[in-house]
Order: sequence, then structure tokens, then C-alpha cells
Amino acid sequence: MPKIIAAFGEVMMRLQVPGYDLLSQGNTLNYTFSGTGVNVISALSRYGHTGYLISRLPSNSLGDAAAAYLRKLGVDSTFIHRGGNYLGMYFLENGFGARSSRVTYSNRLESSFNTAPESEYDYANIASRIDAVHFCGITLAMNDGVRRHMKSLAQAVKEHGGTVIFDCNYRPSLWGEEGYTKAKPHYEDMLKLADIVIMNEKDALFTLGLETEKIEREDQLIDLIPVVAKRYHIQVIAGTHRAVNHNNTHTLRGFLFKNDHFVFSDELTFSVYDRIGAGDAFASGIIHGEMEGLNPNQTVQFAAVAGMLAHTVSGDTPMASEADILRAMTESVGDVER
Amino acid sequence: MPKIIAAFGEVMMRLQVPGYDLLSQGNTLNYTFSGTGVNVISALSRYGHTGYLISRLPSNSLGDAAAAYLRKLGVDSTFIHRGGNYLGMYFLENGFGARSSRVTYSNRLESSFNTAPESEYDYANIASRIDAVHFCGITLAMNDGVRRHMKSLAQAVKEHGGTVIFDCNYRPSLWGEEGYTKAKPHYEDMLKLADIVIMNEKDALFTLGLETEKIEREDQLIDLIPVVAKRYHIQVIAGTHRAVNHNNTHTLRGFLFKNDHFVFSDELTFSVYDRIGAGDAFASGIIHGEMEGLNPNQTVQFAAVAGMLAHTVSGDTPMASEADILRAMTESVGDVER
Amino acid sequence: MPKIIAAFGEVMMRLQVPGYDLLSQGNTLNYTFSGTGVNVISALSRYGHTGYLISRLPSNSLGDAAAAYLRKLGVDSTFIHRGGNYLGMYFLENGFGARSSRVTYSNRLESSFNTAPESEYDYANIASRIDAVHFCGITLAMNDGVRRHMKSLAQAVKEHGGTVIFDCNYRPSLWGEEGYTKAKPHYEDMLKLADIVIMNEKDALFTLGLETEKIEREDQLIDLIPVVAKRYHIQVIAGTHRAVNHNNTHTLRGFLFKNDHFVFSDELTFSVYDRIGAGDAFASGIIHGEMEGLNPNQTVQFAAVAGMLAHTVSGDTPMASEADILRAMTESVGDVER
Amino acid sequence: MPKIIAAFGEVMMRLQVPGYDLLSQGNTLNYTFSGTGVNVISALSRYGHTGYLISRLPSNSLGDAAAAYLRKLGVDSTFIHRGGNYLGMYFLENGFGARSSRVTYSNRLESSFNTAPESEYDYANIASRIDAVHFCGITLAMNDGVRRHMKSLAQAVKEHGGTVIFDCNYRPSLWGEEGYTKAKPHYEDMLKLADIVIMNEKDALFTLGLETEKIEREDQLIDLIPVVAKRYHIQVIAGTHRAVNHNNTHTLRGFLFKNDHFVFSDELTFSVYDRIGAGDAFASGIIHGEMEGLNPNQTVQFAAVAGMLAHTVSGDTPMASEADILRAMTESVGDVER
Amino acid sequence: MPKIIAAFGEVMMRLQVPGYDLLSQGNTLNYTFSGTGVNVISALSRYGHTGYLISRLPSNSLGDAAAAYLRKLGVDSTFIHRGGNYLGMYFLENGFGARSSRVTYSNRLESSFNTAPESEYDYANIASRIDAVHFCGITLAMNDGVRRHMKSLAQAVKEHGGTVIFDCNYRPSLWGEEGYTKAKPHYEDMLKLADIVIMNEKDALFTLGLETEKIEREDQLIDLIPVVAKRYHIQVIAGTHRAVNHNNTHTLRGFLFKNDHFVFSDELTFSVYDRIGAGDAFASGIIHGEMEGLNPNQTVQFAAVAGMLAHTVSGDTPMASEADILRAMTESVGDVER
Amino acid sequence: MPKIIAAFGEVMMRLQVPGYDLLSQGNTLNYTFSGTGVNVISALSRYGHTGYLISRLPSNSLGDAAAAYLRKLGVDSTFIHRGGNYLGMYFLENGFGARSSRVTYSNRLESSFNTAPESEYDYANIASRIDAVHFCGITLAMNDGVRRHMKSLAQAVKEHGGTVIFDCNYRPSLWGEEGYTKAKPHYEDMLKLADIVIMNEKDALFTLGLETEKIEREDQLIDLIPVVAKRYHIQVIAGTHRAVNHNNTHTLRGFLFKNDHFVFSDELTFSVYDRIGAGDAFASGIIHGEMEGLNPNQTVQFAAVAGMLAHTVSGDTPMASEADILRAMTESVGDVER
Repeated sequence: MPKIIAAFGEVMMRLQVPGYDLLSQGNTLNYTFSGTGVNVISALSRYGHTGYLISRLPSNSLGDAAAAYLRKLGVDSTFIHRGGNYLGMYFLENGFGARSSRVTYSNRLESSFNTAPESEYDYANIASRIDAVHFCGITLAMNDGVRRHMKSLAQAVKEHGGTVIFDCNYRPSLWGEEGYTKAKPHYEDMLKLADIVIMNEKDALFTLGLETEKIEREDQLIDLIPVVAKRYHIQVIAGTHRAVNHNNTHTLRGFLFKNDHFVFSDELTFSVYDRIGAGDAFASGIIHGEMEGLNPNQTVQFAAVAGMLAHTVSGDTPMASEADILRAMTESVGDVER
Repeated sequence: MPKIIAAFGEVMMRLQVPGYDLLSQGNTLNYTFSGTGVNVISALSRYGHTGYLISRLPSNSLGDAAAAYLRKLGVDSTFIHRGGNYLGMYFLENGFGARSSRVTYSNRLESSFNTAPESEYDYANIASRIDAVHFCGITLAMNDGVRRHMKSLAQAVKEHGGTVIFDCNYRPSLWGEEGYTKAKPHYEDMLKLADIVIMNEKDALFTLGLETEKIEREDQLIDLIPVVAKRYHIQVIAGTHRAVNHNNTHTLRGFLFKNDHFVFSDELTFSVYDRIGAGDAFASGIIHGEMEGLNPNQTVQFAAVAGMLAHTVSGDTPMASEADILRAMTESVGDVER
Repeated sequence: MPKIIAAFGEVMMRLQVPGYDLLSQGNTLNYTFSGTGVNVISALSRYGHTGYLISRLPSNSLGDAAAAYLRKLGVDSTFIHRGGNYLGMYFLENGFGARSSRVTYSNRLESSFNTAPESEYDYANIASRIDAVHFCGITLAMNDGVRRHMKSLAQAVKEHGGTVIFDCNYRPSLWGEEGYTKAKPHYEDMLKLADIVIMNEKDALFTLGLETEKIEREDQLIDLIPVVAKRYHIQVIAGTHRAVNHNNTHTLRGFLFKNDHFVFSDELTFSVYDRIGAGDAFASGIIHGEMEGLNPNQTVQFAAVAGMLAHTVSGDTPMASEADILRAMTESVGDVER
Repeated sequence: MPKIIAAFGEVMMRLQVPGYDLLSQGNTLNYTFSGTGVNVISALSRYGHTGYLISRLPSNSLGDAAAAYLRKLGVDSTFIHRGGNYLGMYFLENGFGARSSRVTYSNRLESSFNTAPESEYDYANIASRIDAVHFCGITLAMNDGVRRHMKSLAQAVKEHGGTVIFDCNYRPSLWGEEGYTKAKPHYEDMLKLADIVIMNEKDALFTLGLETEKIEREDQLIDLIPVVAKRYHIQVIAGTHRAVNHNNTHTLRGFLFKNDHFVFSDELTFSVYDRIGAGDAFASGIIHGEMEGLNPNQTVQFAAVAGMLAHTVSGDTPMASEADILRAMTESVGDVER
Repeated sequence: MPKIIAAFGEVMMRLQVPGYDLLSQGNTLNYTFSGTGVNVISALSRYGHTGYLISRLPSNSLGDAAAAYLRKLGVDSTFIHRGGNYLGMYFLENGFGARSSRVTYSNRLESSFNTAPESEYDYANIASRIDAVHFCGITLAMNDGVRRHMKSLAQAVKEHGGTVIFDCNYRPSLWGEEGYTKAKPHYEDMLKLADIVIMNEKDALFTLGLETEKIEREDQLIDLIPVVAKRYHIQVIAGTHRAVNHNNTHTLRGFLFKNDHFVFSDELTFSVYDRIGAGDAFASGIIHGEMEGLNPNQTVQFAAVAGMLAHTVSGDTPMASEADILRAMTESVGDVER
Repeated sequence: MPKIIAAFGEVMMRLQVPGYDLLSQGNTLNYTFSGTGVNVISALSRYGHTGYLISRLPSNSLGDAAAAYLRKLGVDSTFIHRGGNYLGMYFLENGFGARSSRVTYSNRLESSFNTAPESEYDYANIASRIDAVHFCGITLAMNDGVRRHMKSLAQAVKEHGGTVIFDCNYRPSLWGEEGYTKAKPHYEDMLKLADIVIMNEKDALFTLGLETEKIEREDQLIDLIPVVAKRYHIQVIAGTHRAVNHNNTHTLRGFLFKNDHFVFSDELTFSVYDRIGAGDAFASGIIHGEMEGLNPNQTVQFAAVAGMLAHTVSGDTPMASEADILRAMTESVGDVER
């Protein structure tokens, strides 16, 4: 049964040099609007849920363009406030083969979202109207005001019996020097409030400071994730292991830990067209599976295939419908559909 | 020696989202005009033959644009009539890797071609001016009016001593439910009139209802094609086996059956840029070989390489010249030509 | 106070050759989705109202793209059904100076909207949830099924105390030979149900068959509109007189007849960038004024300026906000806003 | 009754910076293929005639592209030879308002056309298959080889009873210093062979060295054209007077002198989108009128309107059909055609 | 004789929606890099001078792209420092006719330029290597750090015998509430240091608080400018009066006050393609005239025509060479240059 | 320590059909300006050196555009002369998979560079201001005038104690029939003047006519390069072996011979986006290593990686900075950099 799911997060303007040119070679940019919350909610709306974004956009042409774009993606704008002056932006230069993609950020700390006043959002009202809410570690890195909004909203949703989802998504460049130390208490606050968490062993090791004697990633994962789940009382922990191969392909394998059991998706290897945002597609699959009551095997496989397909479309935001994902879970790559 | 060859078939407008965007992501379309007959005739004109299309286009801007585009492709427009109101169209969203390409058709049953009145074409006059004529199973799926045109023209060409070519090209979505049953009598009519047929074992099994105990595709082919040739008195039957690989490559192998002997092309594996229409390039190679009197080995190899090269250019219509194909038959992939 | 307003109408795909090329010169098309109802509702959403479209889109990629585009325009999709196979389309070649723009339609009679079954829409439910509904003469020209939907819905809205708006919008090419005779009874049915009507003296003369001895357009208008209002019990009749000038400018003057009085807007002369859909912007202004209870002078001036601004943006759909229109009503053309 | 008309002339590649950028600002070019002969013949094919171009293109990708483009324009390629290595090119930067358009040529003297060997064209065969042939003063400026081809072909056509058309089209930059002196004998050779000549009083004054005491352009025209017609035994002389106005409009008036009488077209003022090649549209109208036996008034009006419409489409080559021109001769500028 | 001229100012990234779309309609942006100093220096380099920009760009891809673009414009980058993280940006939506252009700024206060540390620039070294330096009121509006740089550098240039140029360029939105009061002392500091000032009567009235009883702009100008020149010991004051007309044209007239005399340029009316940055072209003309020792009449006419031509090219930065301007000063609008 | 390095060579305009279209399919071209000297010098400027190009461009829009583009690439234009009329051009159609890329040249023999008069360049002045100069075999193939400039300048630099670099770069199509015989004396002249030479065993065998009994490329290399170094007194000889693989990848291995020792880079295999100009990136790496005094192993590895990265960006000209290359030498292919 479809649910009502919200995400709290910033909307970013993505400005991408077309093709494989550098910013110093090109003279046009393609622009879209995205963000972890946008991506997750848009994907969930494609699976049949109602999805809200809780955010704040400037009252100018950029804000109008972002709001229109989000509606196009299927995001309900009831809880998108307008105010402030700026929108966070990032520039993307696509890599090719031996040359990596490169992201350059504008100053997002002054954005409408990151400067929302304390009284901006009505936590109780929102919490009363949704079944679940999604947060992400990128937002957690911004500033105290935003962190207060996050924790207050998570608290309110928990109190109303809703599900709290948290994607760790630690970005070193956002936390700066001694980032793990700064981040740990905030991550712990969120983990205590969360029912579903997206993370892997690296978060446990570096952000939470857990220790293991294991050396292989998978062994560390199996060692540490149960500890995290127990310590913070988390019902579901899911995540991926990714490998970047030399021939423009990536390899991805999802895991899901629930009721003291691990399940794993198939290991998927596929050509990559646009890598950004694919992690959010995986998260959307986990949320969908949990909300719909799929069994863990189905959920992690759905999530992994959702993640794979998100690498095959342009833009940060997943575009696959539930039917597209189910078809890709069962069929091999086909000839033209006509 | 160059021949005069005609094709009878519909002209479609192809509207393609550029790059790898979906229709719901993009805002521009690239358009071209194509069709099985267009593709075959254009290719044959590049090999030095004179090529006519026998078709009907609307008397409006779309018809003007299609007519101009066909001339550009090297198609002689003497037998392209103007009348009716509509042009068939299809929208193409390019797949990438694990995501298949997707074709969406507009309503083509009301097209100028598919509503041509009974007296539209002067079969005898056309037949008297050409050496060979090409038909295709897509046209056969349209309606009774078009089928009457096809059979009457094939009959007329046969009576004038010309060669009749028929490409089975069965499309399930066009015939609807119980399609094979509906299609069989019409296919049999065309096969009886045809001298050269493009098909493989699937057509024999499903459309013609032949049976075999063999399981492997190739064994079925060798079992069934001679039966078809004998039953319908067909001089040449040719076709391909195609495999879609995981890394954006396809594998193709052509066969040709003539005088009770099979010959096969090399098995070719190659990167795919635009798959649509590549089957028509193979057909054009078979026709060219037969018209020029090449030996079967040369013919099937020429056709397979023509098919391979058609996957490397944009659009449905093959662009390789005879010289390009001959070079690709003998040389390995090279560095820049300068 | 913002209202809830719906429109019943077809969604068309607009395929425009960029710049001033002809279809036979270009190779790309810009596509958008529009329609009289879409345009009116999108404009009303920009003035702060909630706007629904009541329509039907195919269950394929084109339908997905149209639905996403409509959401982007601010149209609420609650009453947009999915079913059927085709979308109506039109191709636009922009004119320049002495060369007129040219529109070429695809076959729209088989569209999802025009083949909606009799039980498709729940008139009573819709009527119970809206304050007003908009219809247009283009829809009336389609077929009996669509006309039944129109009249049943108008009846239901009237019964629920809602406002019925009808834009005459007679298109000769859609009604064919003896069109006025065929159209008259259907127009009369709608006029009897309508509270607000968009028309001018030409509709009275040609479609309704009224007569006048006056020769000048304005005299005819003043002679005939009161007769129409009285005969069909219409509260508000509004419309425009347009002149196409030689230097790429148009001249527009709006009128509004209510309570036995005519009011007129200023006569506006302005450069034209994209003329299509500008009439819908005028209609949206009349509806807004009436819904908000503006006085007739304000309403007709707002509508005329809304119409003028709609000529300055690309696409069929007006993009001006209420604030943009109010600013343009009071200020002269300015330098860059920064 | 449609005629068979050929033109002898060079094909140029036009490389245009899109919009109003300079070459040092942009990074893309739009390319087309044109030339005086191409433009005239393409226009005549749109009026229903069969049109050949007699020319020579290189045997490489550029030649292939040019040949395909010419077919698209409706030019029959029977007499287009392939050989040599280069194609003439020019770069176009569009002017705007107070800034003039700017053309930069590549080296065209080594082009395939301008280096065609003496035995390249079979004059007698060509002459025996056409009703008329068109030449232009630009070709006359190239080199002795090309001039020999021109004169020999004109001679052959005259001997076969065909009509010889010559457009003076004097370009100072092509003839260099003391250009008029160098050009005069060649112009006189062509004028003696010509039946229809496109020129105005400037050609008479500067190239032919005639004298008049009149000061106004029109008086000079009326004074000098009859002298030219008599001296060189020319049946029809036609041409235009053009004024470039300040607001991106031009004013054009055509004249035609025949049987000792002058007729003039209306003076037409219109917005200009692409000025290049518009003179060829006027010439095509004069040729069409003469070939079809229209009366001089009809001919000069048809030619002037053809010229006007050629300013409203992109590219050097006129795109208007006979129907488009006839409609523009009778109707005022209209609203959208749909 | 060519001089060595520097400008001190910020580099902005301009992100423009192509054509006439709004940000909420489009999906691509054209980007360039500009700024008052960039525009003036680039223009001066086209007149033969050596031009430096004194500025600071971030050490990332955006900074690399900006630096490359400035070199392309002819700006010498010797004094462009690299450091800090952000680049100022603005988004431009082109107006059309009755709809004004709209500029939306990103947060520029954190830009590399506006956060340059106190010791960033070596004033004495720069001053010793240049003949003149240009400053602008936009920079003056930023913050105290930037204002200190401006005044220190102006002081240093003055001490080394160089010419100080100041363009008042008051932007209300940058100074905020009570802006004139905040701005006045800083403007006075700069005027006292300046030799050449670009301003008009509005700056005298509003920023400097002078008073006049005159009502017409021109009378106010003649009344106030001599007072300003005397009070602040300014050798040359120049500026423009601009009118925005209804038909996409502007009217411009330049003035220059020197040695107690006013001179005026012709009043120029012209079509406008891209208005932004045209004021900088006028300034560049004044500087060029003064540096080259032209008489005031020549200078103001050169500057006004430079300003006019800057409206006819895309981008903020003037592209006309000295020869282009001289030609436009003497000739009327012409046909194609070839 | 950064050096001052010049290259002597022609600037070519590259006109590339976007994507994978043929010239006969497309209608737009992307243009850039390049040349062996441009590429080498631009790369060296990215490594921190000052780089001059010694060349000649036409005094028209094409020359202006080329000059601006070269500045953007980081090339100092002090020694770029303006004069003559034409610019060399080439058209590029990108190959895909089994279809090779194709280059078509315009007539470059009449270019400004190739027609520079004997007194054009001041060899002594240039030689006195630079540390090294780069020449290439393409220039050597042009004509006697250009060859005289090359040898005179090389002589002058040698006399001033500078380093002479020569890249053999033999192009068969430029030398025509019996090309090796014609080329040999000129190559020998340059080799005698050169300190650093880019070549491999093919140049030794075919151009210089050396002989070996070895069969494998590598054995031939090891046999012949020392002979060349000794015979012509060359300090450093470097070059590459390249293999074109079937899956759109190339394999590259660099060598460097100095002080009687060979060193080799890793064998690198990588996906290819734009192959043209990658050889110049390798050369730039060798020059950088030698100028900076790196050890031969570092130099050849730096050069090979510079070559590899040049295949991953569009255009002929390498875009990697020294930091980019050093990073790619040490790290494996990574995920997005953000």
C-alpha cells in the first residue's frame, strides 16, 4: 500500500558541462535541480508513494525554476517554503576513462535552506501527515541551525509513530579538519532516532570509531554492522559496496541487516553513464521494500537494481518506475523495445 | 552492372531524444525520415544502383520535409505520390547499458501510405521500369488495402521478369493477438511470389508453423530453411543470427542459402551506436550481391559487414558506400584516416 | 481569495522547429505540451489559484512526459486519467515578417482524450470539489463522445453551484464543410450552461447566425454581444480585437460586457515573440478578475496585459505571475531588472 | 508548362556562426551548400521545373555532403561531376542593427569547380537536353578556364535553340584593381550570347562604361537599359533597386524591360532575416515568368515577391513554392496558418 | 601611442538562458565571464593598448575557466591572483519587448575577490608599471576590505603620476537602505583621487547630494557637472543619457566636460541585442580618447559609437575594434560586407 | 624552474561534426584552432612554462578568432604575425567502433603561414629570448619557404645556446609519391640541428633508410635508435608504440633513449575519446622532463601519462595540468572528485 513519505534536505542546482568538456573548454551548461532528499522522494513517487520535500527555496527566478523542476520530478511541494536569497549550486565536469569527474561547489552556507530561521517549519504538523521521513548526513554537516531542524523533526516524527530513515553519507570535505570528531555526536543523535539507516563499515570505523581486527571489507561489515544496530537500536541497516573498474563500468553489491540477519543482493556489473545520485536510488529501494513489507531478499535486490539503473540515466535523480526495476530484476539486457 | 531497384513501403518520421535522456527529461528531438524500403533503397544507391521508393506522403510540410530528406538519402522520388493527411511517426529513447532503448509509435493506420486508394499506383508501368522490387513484412501487417497493393505489384514485377525480394520482418505488436495465424496466409502469398527472401528459423517456426526436433538455433536453421525454399520455390534465403552482449556490443552472423547450399559470414562482434535499421543494411547487401552476381560467400560477407557498419552511424538508414564496406571487409580497425 | 478551478480539455504535444527554419530545413524540434485548458489552468495557478486539468493521457512514454510537463506548469494532475494509446500533436514552423507561421496537425481523433470511454470521468465528484470549470470550442469540435463529456460535466458543475466558463474559439478547419451549421446546436448548448463566455462579434455572426446592419467591427460588437448575453443568460462576455501589423507587432484591445455595460482595455501594441496561446492568457485574466471580484475595468485591463505578456514568452502557455502583470499594468518598459 | 533549366556555377560551403556571435565568440558553425546557380535552380524546381546544376565537386566527404544537400534542395545531379580536391567556402557572421554582416572567404581558386579541366563538360550533350541555361558574373570573375567553359556552353545552348540567361552580379573584390576594365570584354561576350539579363544601371555605367547625364538612379535606369538591350540584342533585362533601412528592413522594387517597355513591381518593404541569396530568388522569378509566358507585370511582381520571401528564411537558397509566392502576392500578412 | 592600462575589479560568471526562455522553462545556460573592469580592459586591448586586470580568482575549475576566458578577451593576466574558493555569478533571463530582462545574483560577498586579504596586492609595483587605472562604483559597494584596496591602489597610481579613472556606476540594490548616505563618503574619496570620472547628473543629485532648480535632465547636467568637477578637482567628466524606446530600440547621447566646456555626441538610436555592459564600452571610448589625446568632440563621438556597437553583440564585453568604431562613425548601415 | 619555450608551426582550424554523424548527415560543426606547435606549447604552459608560438595568421575574422583561441589555450602571441589571406582547415568526422575517424583537409598551401615572405621572422631576436624551440615534420612537408624559415630559426637558436626539439611526424599524404626520398635530406638537416627528437623505428627505416634484420618493432627500435642518435649527434630520442584495440581502447608505451640507455614507460591501456593531438601531449611531457631535469624514468612516465590523458578530452590540444598528470601517475581511476 502506498505510503506518504517526506524528506528533509537541501535543493541544489546542478550545472553540468555537456559531453566531456572541461569548464575552460565549453560555453554552455545543462542545469537541473537535485539533492539527496529530492532524489529519494522522486524515486519513491515513481514507485507509487506520495512524496513531500521539506525544504526552503529563494523567492526569485532560481527558486521558481527549482520548484517547477521538483514538481516535474513528482515531488509534492506543500512543505517547500520560499524565502532567503540563494540556492546552493555545484558544477560538474564529466570524467572519461582515466580522467575522473570533477565537482566544484558554490558557497552553499548562505543558501535559503541553510539560513532558514528557527521557526521556519511546523514539525508537529508535518509529522502528523506523513508515514516516514528521510534525512541525510550531508545536511547534518551544514550548521547548527539545520542540525536543530533535523533533530527536532526526527523527534516529532518518532513521537507520531512514523519511521525515521537516516543515510549516513559522510562527506569529508564538508566536515573539514578533524571531521570525524566533530561529526560523531551529531551522527549518534541521528542514529538513536533512526529506524532505517543507510551506511557501511566505513561509517562504523571512521565516524563512530568502532574497531575490528578484520581486514577484508566484507568481514569488517559483518563484524561491525550488528554492533551498530544493537548499540543504537536500529531495525534495518543497509548499504552497498562499490568498485570502480577500468572500463567505465562499476560493480555494486547491496546488503541489508535486519533481525540479526544479513542478506545480500547479486553482485551487479554495468556500464556507467551518470554516477551521481545512484546511492539515493539504492536508498529509495530499501525504503520502498520496508514500507511495502517486502522480504529482505526482495528489498535488497530491488534496491541494488534501482541503484544500477540510476547509473544509466542522466541527472542525479533516478527515473526508473517500479515496473522498470522489476523487469530489470528478471530479464537480461534486451534489444530495442517496440 | 548497376540495376534499377524499387521498394514499396511506408516512410516514417523518427523523433529521437538526443543523447540518453528520456522523453520526460528532454525538450528537443532529432528528426529524420526512414522506413525499411527507404533504408534498403538508400543503401543500394550508395552501391551504385538507381533506387526508387514507391510510397505516398501527405501534401503538407511534413510530406515536403520527408520528400526532401529522401532525396538527400539518394532515393529517386519519381514514384512517391502525394496525398492524404498524415505521416506515421515513432519516438525513440536511447537505452544505455542495462537500460533498453524504447520506441513509442503514433497512430500510423491513418497515414497517407496506409490510406492510399486502390487506384493509386500504376503497377504495370512501375514493373516495366525496374529490375527488382523489395517488400517487407511490416507493410504486410498494416491493412487489406496495403496488402492488395503489395501483392498486385509483386505479381506485376514477376510478370515483367523482375526479381521479387521479401523481408519477413515479423513484428508481434503489429499483428496483435493470434498474430501468427492472421499473418500466415499473407506471408505465404508473398513467399510464393518471392525470389529472394530475408528470414531465419523463427519465421519458419512461428509464422509458417514448420516443425523441427532440433534445439539449437543453428541446427533449426539448417533443418528448416531448405524446407521453406523448396515449398515456396525461393531461389535465395538469407538472414542473420544476432546476440546482444552485456558490454554494449552485439554479435552478428549472416547466412545465405542458395542452390541447396548454406554459406555463412564471419561472426562479427562490434560496438553498437544505433541499432535500428541495421537489418535493412544486411538485406541491401544480399540484394547487391545477387544483383551484381557475386558468389554466395562474397555476398553474405558483404551483407554482414554492411550490417555491422550500419550499427556505427546514427539514424535508421545505412550510410556506408560500397568502398567503405569493401575496406572494412579486408582491413582491421585503423587509426584516424587522414 | 484563491479558488479551485478546473479545465476540461485535450493535451497536445507541440513540436516546433527552432528559430525560423522550415521542417524541410531543420533536423531538431523543441517539444512542449499544451492545450487551451492547460494554458488557462497554468496561468491561474500562477495567480495563486489551485488548478486541475480534467483530461486523459496515454499510458506510455509520451503520456509520462506530458504528465511531468503539466506538473511543472503548476497543473494539479489529480483528474488526469491514463489510458488509450495516442497523444494529439502539432508541428509549428515559425513565420518571419512577410511569411506566416504554419501549423501542421497529426491525427488527433484517435488520441487518448478523444477516445475516452463514456464512464471515464466522475462528473459529480469533480463538480463537488471545484469552484469553476473551463471549456473551449476546440474540444467541442472533436466528436460526440467528447461533447457528451463536456455537457455532462458543465451540467454537473452548474448543479453544484459552480461557475461554467466557455471560450467559443471556433476553428474552421476542425468543423469542415458547413461547419457553422454543424457547430451551432452544440455552441448553443454550451452557451446556455455558461456563466462566463469568451467570444466576439464574429462568433455571434457566423456561429450563432445573428445579424446586424453595422459594418465596423466595434459597432457590430456593441450591437450583438448584448443580444447574445440576453438570449443565453450569460453573466459575463469578454473577448478581444486583434490587428496584425507589418512590423512584427500586434495590436490588441479587450472588452468585457457585464450588467448591460461594456468596458474596454487600453489598446496595446507590442512586439510578438510567440503568438500561440495568447488568447488563453486573456481568458485566464478574465476568469481571475471574476473569481477575485475585481471591477470590470480592472479585470479587462489585467486580462489584456496578461494577453500581451503571453506574446513575449516562448511556448503556448502563459508564464507571467500576478505580480508581473500588475507591474506591466503600471510601469513603462524598463531597462534590465537587477 | 514546366521546362528543363540548367545553371552553370560553383557550389560553395556556407559556414555561419549561429545567432549574432562573432567567429571569435562562438564555437559552432551551421553549414549549408549554395551558390548562385544552386539557388536559382532550387527555386525553379519549387515552381515545378526540372533543374540541373552543371558543376564539379571534390571526391571526398565534403563533396558527398554537398551533393546530398543539393539533392535535398531539389537539384538534379546528373551533370554534377566529381573530381579535384577542394570546395570553395565562406564564413558568415550575422550583423545586427548598426553592425553589418561579414563574409570571409577561403581560397576558392583551387576548388574542384575552378580547376575543372578543359574537356570536363560535354557542352553539346547538355545543350541538347535543356530549354535554358543560367550563368552569373561571379563565375565570370574566376579564371580563364571557367570563362571558357561558360562561353562554350552558352554558345552550345544558343546553337541548340535554348535560352541563355546571364546575371551580371559584379563583385568588386573578385576582380581586383582596375576590375571594370578587366571585366568588360568578358561581360560583353556574355551579353552578346544572352537572351535574358539580370542587371541594373550600375552595371551599364561601371562595367560597360555607358554614360548618362541623369542623376537619380531611376532616371539613369530608364536612360541606359534600353541602350544595353539594343546594343547587345537582349530580349529581356530585369533587376532591382534595393534600399537598406535603419530598422532591420529593406525596401525592394523590381523592374523588367522587354519589347521597349519598362514595367515595375510594387515597392516592397519588409523585415530581413537572411539577406544572402535573395537576389537569386528575384532572378528565379524572372526566369519562371519568361519560361511560363506570363505577362511582364505578372513576371516582375512574382519575382519581387519571390525576392522578398527569400529574405525571410535562413540560408542562401529560396524555399518558397509557387503557391507560397502567389499567396503572398494577393494577401496581407496573416495570423498563424492552421 | 598605445598605453598600459589596468582595471581593478571583480570577475563575474554570467549564466544566461539562451533565447528568450525563463529559467523555469529552459535547461541550458550559456556562460561567459565579465565585469566592469574586464569589459573596459578588453575594449582597450582592441584599440591597441595593453590591458591588465587586477583581481582574484578561485584556485579551482571555475577560476581556470575564468582566467582562460579573460585571456581570450585580450586581458593580460599578470596581476590576476589565484586564491579563495568562490566566484561571483549572475543569471540573466533575456526580456523581449514588453517584458524586461531579469538578473538574479548568487552570493558574491564570499567571492575570492571580495575576500582578498589585506596584503594581497603590491600597489607600488603595479602603479609603477601602468599609465592609468580604472575603478568602478560597483566594487566600492562591496565591503571595507575591497574599498581599502581600491583607495590604496588609486593613491599609489596617483603618486606614480598615473591617471585615475572612476566610473560612479551606483547600484541601489548593492548599497541597501539609506544607500546614498552610506555611499557618499566613499564616492567622495574616490572622486578626490580621480582624473577622469564617468557619471551624470543623477550621481551629483543623489549620491553627492548636490541641488539644482532645473527640471530637465540636460539642464540639470549642465548645472551640476561643473560644480562636481570643480569641487573634486576632476579633469574630465563624461557620461550618457539613455532612453528605452518601445520598439526594442534605445536612444543614447554622450557628453564630455573638460576645461570648462561641454561637448555632446550625436543622439544615436539603434536596435538592442544585448544591453548589459554597453556602459563600459562608452567608458572605454572616453579613456581611449583621453589616453590618445583626441579632441573632446572626437572622444565623445568615439565613445558613443563604441557604446552603440556594444548593444549589437552578445555578452557583456564590447567586441568592436578601433577600426569597426571608426567605420561606424562615418558610414551608414550597410549591406553585407564581402 | 620554468623555461621559455617556443614552437614554430601552422595554426589549423579544426571543424568537427558533433557526435558521430557524417558530414552528409549533420548541419553543424564545432570549431577550434590547433596545430602541433599549438598543442605542445599549450601543454607546456599548463606545466608552468612560458610558451610562444611563432606563426602567421590572416588579417581577418578567422585570424582574430584563432588568435583569441590561442590566448585562451595559454599561448603567448608576441611572435604571431598577421598577414596573408587564408587559414589552413581540416574537417573531422568521428569514427565509432568498426568505423574509423576521417579527416578531410582544405587547401593549406595558400595559408598565411605557408606563404609568409622570406623576411617575415626575426630569427636572432626570437632566438635571444627563448630557452628552446620545437619543430615538427608536418611543417617540413609544406614548401621551400617554410623549410627555409625552419632551418634558419633552428640554426639561430642553436647559435644562441638554446635547445632544438624536432618531432619527425612523417605524414605520407603530405609528401606525395616517392615521399621518403624527397623528405630525407630535409629530415637530415633538422636532425643535425636537433638536441631532442621525437621519432621511432619507422622513421629510421623509411625516412632515413636505415636497415635492420630484426622483425619485432621493439627489437628494431633498440637496434636503430642508437644509430640515429650517434649519426646525427642527438642527445635525447623519445617516442611511442601504439596499438589500436577493438573495444575503443588504445595501448601506449613510451621510450626514451639518452646517454646510450633506453628507458620505457608502463604499457598503458585506456578508453579513447579524442585521439587527435595525443602525440603532442607525449612530446610536451618529454620536453618538460628534459627542461626540468627529471630523470629519464620520470620523464618517459610523465610523457606517457600526459599522452594517455590527452585521449580523454575533446580537441587536439592537451588540457591536463602538471598536477593532473602527477595524480594520474600515482592513483588508480577514482570515483567522482568532490
